[in-house]
Amino acid sequence: MTTADNGVNVQALLDARQALKDAPEAAQFTWRASSRWDHGVHSTTTIEKFFGLGQEQTHKAQSTFEADHPAVFAAEDNGITPIEYLLVGLAGCLTAGVASVAQNRGIQLRSVEAHVEGQHDIRGILGDGDVRNGYEGIKVTFNIDADASRQEIEALVAQSQKRSAVFDALTNPTDVTVEVA
Amino acid sequence: MTTADNGVNVQALLDARQALKDAPEAAQFTWRASSRWDHGVHSTTTIEKFFGLGQEQTHKAQSTFEADHPAVFAAEDNGITPIEYLLVGLAGCLTAGVASVAQNRGIQLRSVEAHVEGQHDIRGILGDGDVRNGYEGIKVTFNIDADASRQEIEALVAQSQKRSAVFDALTNPTDVTVEVA
Repeated sequence: MTTADNGVNVQALLDARQALKDAPEAAQFTWRASSRWDHGVHSTTTIEKFFGLGQEQTHKAQSTFEADHPAVFAAEDNGITPIEYLLVGLAGCLTAGVASVAQNRGIQLRSVEAHVEGQHDIRGILGDGDVRNGYEGIKVTFNIDADASRQEIEALVAQSQKRSAVFDALTNPTDVTVEVA
Repeated sequence: MTTADNGVNVQALLDARQALKDAPEAAQFTWRASSRWDHGVHSTTTIEKFFGLGQEQTHKAQSTFEADHPAVFAAEDNGITPIEYLLVGLAGCLTAGVASVAQNRGIQLRSVEAHVEGQHDIRGILGDGDVRNGYEGIKVTFNIDADASRQEIEALVAQSQKRSAVFDALTNPTDVTVEVA
């Protein structure tokens, strides 16, 4: 029995896992984003609706995100670069996992910080076929203050990584189809 | 000769490509994000500085992003889910590429919209080892109005995909290291 409270409703997640075992079609989610070109390499992307648990769902609020290139790429820097959004997703996913696993293990968290760095040789996107377009590698460093030993904290992070959607999406290939309507 | 103006400084990019051929160390960029756990699976990620062209760089403004899980995951929906951030990055990257390639080819764009959908079987993140944690697949559909034939528009999109940092990061594996400080 634990009194740890990290704000994660672990029982609901365990119940969902059990329920979805018997109803795999409800586990099929579709996440959606719509973007609009603004000017130059600046675009605005909106997220509001998704599909899951067999029906259309709506986020509490519509979210809007600006993407651009920085001044060193001769652009206007109206938002972060597209590839930086991958780091946002990775940090958020691993942190959510740490909180969830900690709750499930009865570990009280006090603070969780992550610093993410992606190494990127930009010769690829500029047209050098011998250099990949994406990240050469990404490093995540956690600073966690919790009611737990260092070994327990490392185990939290390892389990978070093992079940992270974004970690998987970055470390393993995903089929991406791009077409013109 | 073209009078197309999509707002992309293609000459600067072509100059950069040439300059970086002779100075590959300047092409080594490090993109960075820092996140802080808020409560539950809610976290806040900040992006401001990066390294490139051999020195520290700063975005025009600091950007802050909220990540959370939606109500159907028994969470508070204070932001989009981490895995949705990947769709934001993908849309922004391919759109920037379309604008850049169009500029380089002298094609005037009038509007570019993209709709991105990621298929996600959430049984993976809930612990089913037979289901992957990340996306099963992603589909991007472009609606482009431009001073060009359908064939030219399809070629723009194909070339954008070929040089997209985020498309590469999602379709090919990247080494991601996660550690506790």
